[in-house]
Amino acid sequence: MSRLLDTVNSPADLKGLSQEQLEQLCREIREYIVECCAHNPGHIGSSLGAVEIAVALHKVFDAPKDKIVWDVGHQAYAHKIITGRRVSFQHNREKDGLSGFPRRDESEYDAFGAGHASTSISAALGMAVADQLSGIEANHIAVIGDGAMSGGLAFEGLNNAGSSRANLLVILNDNRISIDVPNDAMHRHLMRITTGAGYNRIKKSIWRRLGEGKFREFLQALTRSTKKFLLHNTQTVSMFDSLGFRYFGPIDGNDLGAVISILERLKKLEGPKILHLVTVKGKGYKPAEENPEVWHAPGVFDPETGETNHAKGGPAKYQTVFGETVTELAAADPRIVGITPAMLRGSSLDIMKERFPDRVFDVGIAEGHAVTFSAGLAAAGMLPVCNIYSSFMQRAYDNLVHDVALQHLKVIFCLDRGGLVGEDGATHHGVFDMAAFRSVPGIAIASPYNETDLRNLLYSAAQSDWPATIIRYPRGCGEGAAWRGAAFEKIPFGKAVKRSDGGGVAILSIGPIGNKCAQAVEAAREKLGAEILHYDMRFLKPIDTEALEAACAAADTILTVEDGTVVGGLHGAVCEYVADRGLDKRVIAVGVPDKFIEQATVAQQYSECKMGWEDILQKVTENFGN
Amino acid sequence: MSRLLDTVNSPADLKGLSQEQLEQLCREIREYIVECCAHNPGHIGSSLGAVEIAVALHKVFDAPKDKIVWDVGHQAYAHKIITGRRVSFQHNREKDGLSGFPRRDESEYDAFGAGHASTSISAALGMAVADQLSGIEANHIAVIGDGAMSGGLAFEGLNNAGSSRANLLVILNDNRISIDVPNDAMHRHLMRITTGAGYNRIKKSIWRRLGEGKFREFLQALTRSTKKFLLHNTQTVSMFDSLGFRYFGPIDGNDLGAVISILERLKKLEGPKILHLVTVKGKGYKPAEENPEVWHAPGVFDPETGETNHAKGGPAKYQTVFGETVTELAAADPRIVGITPAMLRGSSLDIMKERFPDRVFDVGIAEGHAVTFSAGLAAAGMLPVCNIYSSFMQRAYDNLVHDVALQHLKVIFCLDRGGLVGEDGATHHGVFDMAAFRSVPGIAIASPYNETDLRNLLYSAAQSDWPATIIRYPRGCGEGAAWRGAAFEKIPFGKAVKRSDGGGVAILSIGPIGNKCAQAVEAAREKLGAEILHYDMRFLKPIDTEALEAACAAADTILTVEDGTVVGGLHGAVCEYVADRGLDKRVIAVGVPDKFIEQATVAQQYSECKMGWEDILQKVTENFGN
Repeated sequence: MSRLLDTVNSPADLKGLSQEQLEQLCREIREYIVECCAHNPGHIGSSLGAVEIAVALHKVFDAPKDKIVWDVGHQAYAHKIITGRRVSFQHNREKDGLSGFPRRDESEYDAFGAGHASTSISAALGMAVADQLSGIEANHIAVIGDGAMSGGLAFEGLNNAGSSRANLLVILNDNRISIDVPNDAMHRHLMRITTGAGYNRIKKSIWRRLGEGKFREFLQALTRSTKKFLLHNTQTVSMFDSLGFRYFGPIDGNDLGAVISILERLKKLEGPKILHLVTVKGKGYKPAEENPEVWHAPGVFDPETGETNHAKGGPAKYQTVFGETVTELAAADPRIVGITPAMLRGSSLDIMKERFPDRVFDVGIAEGHAVTFSAGLAAAGMLPVCNIYSSFMQRAYDNLVHDVALQHLKVIFCLDRGGLVGEDGATHHGVFDMAAFRSVPGIAIASPYNETDLRNLLYSAAQSDWPATIIRYPRGCGEGAAWRGAAFEKIPFGKAVKRSDGGGVAILSIGPIGNKCAQAVEAAREKLGAEILHYDMRFLKPIDTEALEAACAAADTILTVEDGTVVGGLHGAVCEYVADRGLDKRVIAVGVPDKFIEQATVAQQYSECKMGWEDILQKVTENFGN
Repeated sequence: MSRLLDTVNSPADLKGLSQEQLEQLCREIREYIVECCAHNPGHIGSSLGAVEIAVALHKVFDAPKDKIVWDVGHQAYAHKIITGRRVSFQHNREKDGLSGFPRRDESEYDAFGAGHASTSISAALGMAVADQLSGIEANHIAVIGDGAMSGGLAFEGLNNAGSSRANLLVILNDNRISIDVPNDAMHRHLMRITTGAGYNRIKKSIWRRLGEGKFREFLQALTRSTKKFLLHNTQTVSMFDSLGFRYFGPIDGNDLGAVISILERLKKLEGPKILHLVTVKGKGYKPAEENPEVWHAPGVFDPETGETNHAKGGPAKYQTVFGETVTELAAADPRIVGITPAMLRGSSLDIMKERFPDRVFDVGIAEGHAVTFSAGLAAAGMLPVCNIYSSFMQRAYDNLVHDVALQHLKVIFCLDRGGLVGEDGATHHGVFDMAAFRSVPGIAIASPYNETDLRNLLYSAAQSDWPATIIRYPRGCGEGAAWRGAAFEKIPFGKAVKRSDGGGVAILSIGPIGNKCAQAVEAAREKLGAEILHYDMRFLKPIDTEALEAACAAADTILTVEDGTVVGGLHGAVCEYVADRGLDKRVIAVGVPDKFIEQATVAQQYSECKMGWEDILQKVTENFGN
């Protein structure tokens, strides 16, 4: 049977479809997403939930003239599929394939790129204001999830847009209903709206009236119902009203007809508006509906059975080592508390949360707050361990400087997903952390060589005299070290570990990439019959100048190896050491070059950046004895 | 006549004072603040407005056990004066004197340091949660201005606190009533509350009842009045209610009795509460009340006449050069729009606003939004010029990376207050920008040598093929170049300017500190009879490798000179160049060392960091021919 979907090569192709056909299209899109993601993993849950939103938007509005901004962007698969990327979606998140997020350079229908949360309202407002100034009549739509709405940037955008005359439509895609309510007030209020008696009443009565198609009546009815509703829920709806937005909803966001109807009407209404749609994460695919947490990004799976196919065995993930270790430390030290901005499971801090529910705080998507809140906890005598993915920590740069470092407060930052992360691509790499934070006074920066090292770094950071410590480690699995249950060892701050002795070339590495260096050293022993000096620096700051001195004494060429930008990171620190002293040494950088690295597997990205063990071996060979 | 004030050496000394005495104390504190600030400039306006808040807080609460967090902190002079720093307040903002902001290391009464806005709620929540966990019964108070409330971090804090059981009191110090309402929705709503009919009614009726001292009656009455009030102002009050806070107010925050009464009562009320106080900026000092903008930080003045004593003549400020130039460019290019987060006058973007009111956007304290909004404007074809003080740009690091650089959007960032800023101290220096942003791919970073250079850099950035450009320049006056009305010259991106030819030592500088290098070169000519090679690099990125090559050819010692951290900035870039190539050169850093620099005059800070022209001369002399 031929698919309707195969006839849709641009939004123009769905303008003429009937509602029945569009509903069929939604079903086909869902099947296609499931089919593609089964063997090529992606963010399936959010995207399944937003199919009707994407179809309705492209039915009602005229992109690319009308600008649709998808917040975060991992829910935009249907949007990609109906805007000319149906076939290439088979290579979603692959090297030279589609990005998993909207990208301006991928399609004219992607009005603004994303990856991080809460940016859509500010960006769409910018475009709305620009079009106003240019005299262009267009609609500007930000589609933002309830999770992203807790980010301060979203509030700043709302606050600014609410006072403007901008013709901006914010679609709040609320799909958290069935999941744990995180630790923030906004969610409680969205919950209250959607679980209140008002929701179903509105749902039924409004859409009956909508059928008649009289806009004035509709609005009047909506206002009446909303007012009635307000009597029960004064606190909820008015948050947006008080910011100058006209609030509409809540409405079933998976009811295509309802969504199209209200969009048709809102399109004619000027000024800032917010439409609250309630959607089901994983909609239409039963396993995903039933277990939305797991199906946020489930990896490969069997589309028939919904069985996910996680590799069994092998080393634990670094995040597991973190989660178990921090729990162990917390058991012994009541001052230890855990903080994370919406990465409870992703950081494995849920392990500690289970054992010490009162001592772990998931503050929602609010990275700046997570850090300043941690500083407050520290100021009152706690020992906060704050876990944030490296690329999201970019949002809390000033909080780190102003609230933590400047006050010499003791906070341990665990930056997960440090380095190249693979399929999530350019927005998600944690490659700037070491370079950016090295110039902040008074903060120690470390990266573990392996699981045991991570464990001992955490233990030692808690014990050390240093105020704040950053411990960064990569996404994914460890090196297979026997870490579980091992006795803690105190690591001296600022001391490197000599992994092998020798000369001809000296290797200085930081983090788990040091294991690739060890592999290269091993290979060089066979290939060159030579011993290579290799220090695992462990600390970027304070840097071990004795190790640097020894490296400079042993060789004229020094290789710095790091899973991060070569501009200003370990490479920068070693160059400063060498040039400050006027040493006649050459320092060669292995690391991420000064450009954004697109989606691919981590292995492909390592290869692109020439950071594999063979690349290191080649540099050793080329420069041996020089 | 002996002053009551002289008997107050700690909050304990005001516990026994009658309301009349406390009112006298407030008057004396005001006189003292005016007296001290007349010859030793400070943030007089905000601090005069908050005298009653400080006195009432210390009367009602028991600091330091109860923790008072002052947001931003420039309104905390009365707090400092009554917490043992009366005498030392005479040396406010001076080297080795008091910080102009709260500092944890200055007094146990300063529960949390500040300088940047919007941090207080997150920090106080952290302390409240910590005390809860430790079983300590204490009150936690955040005092935050209406301006700081628009910051996303404040929202993140409110949102998180509202869902907690934390015993947190947020005092909203609303003093913007009399000034321009900036471009945000929250202010409109605060305006609506305080100008609405409800305000005076509540003010009178509530305080009559308060006199009777029955807490239950008071609360009931308040609730009744508030409900009535809500009928007129549903949209306003409920913003805080919807975030889980109990809202009280608005109340005259300069009415000491009223403030004490409500604080006494709120102290007994558990859970998150917000108290909305309306205060008058500059209260009690007529010139400051009448012209609050000017009296935010007026410099020295005659306390009798209120005549401010600004130095006349001399070079224009860099900000003026920016303001006039951007206006000139905007006149010729309709794509140019100006954006600033609450630094309209401080950046001199008000010059453009006056001429092109529709093309300049003061988005309030919301740095992240300012940058992402600029990115949105750029995505829709505008050419945004976004002016942010360097130290506040630290708040928008991720927006720069994720929303601008990654999308290759053309935004011109003008970072004012780059480098050491003097009396505002550690929180306000713009010393991390060059080091932090150098590792962001695809962004040009420049700093002008003088006024003409700033002018031409702006002109050239608008014309260049580079997407984003950062132009950073210092606080204060220029070098006296004849810039006004000069014809624009196109500056080639990534090219240095040879300021003098020679050898023995090579100087590479960036920014106006290059003028000090020129002075040192001049002096070296006399002292050593030698010509010194000096490049004004102009661009940190792309860096002029031809100039670096020439410098390395001319001398074995290279001096890098910058008004910024020596870790990773220009010094880092030059060290990387030298060490990457294995050149046998020594690179000596002149710049801000790896520590926080406390308040002092800029000259004193330059001297502390050994960045004066004599220091440069000394380094030249010591290393000449080495």
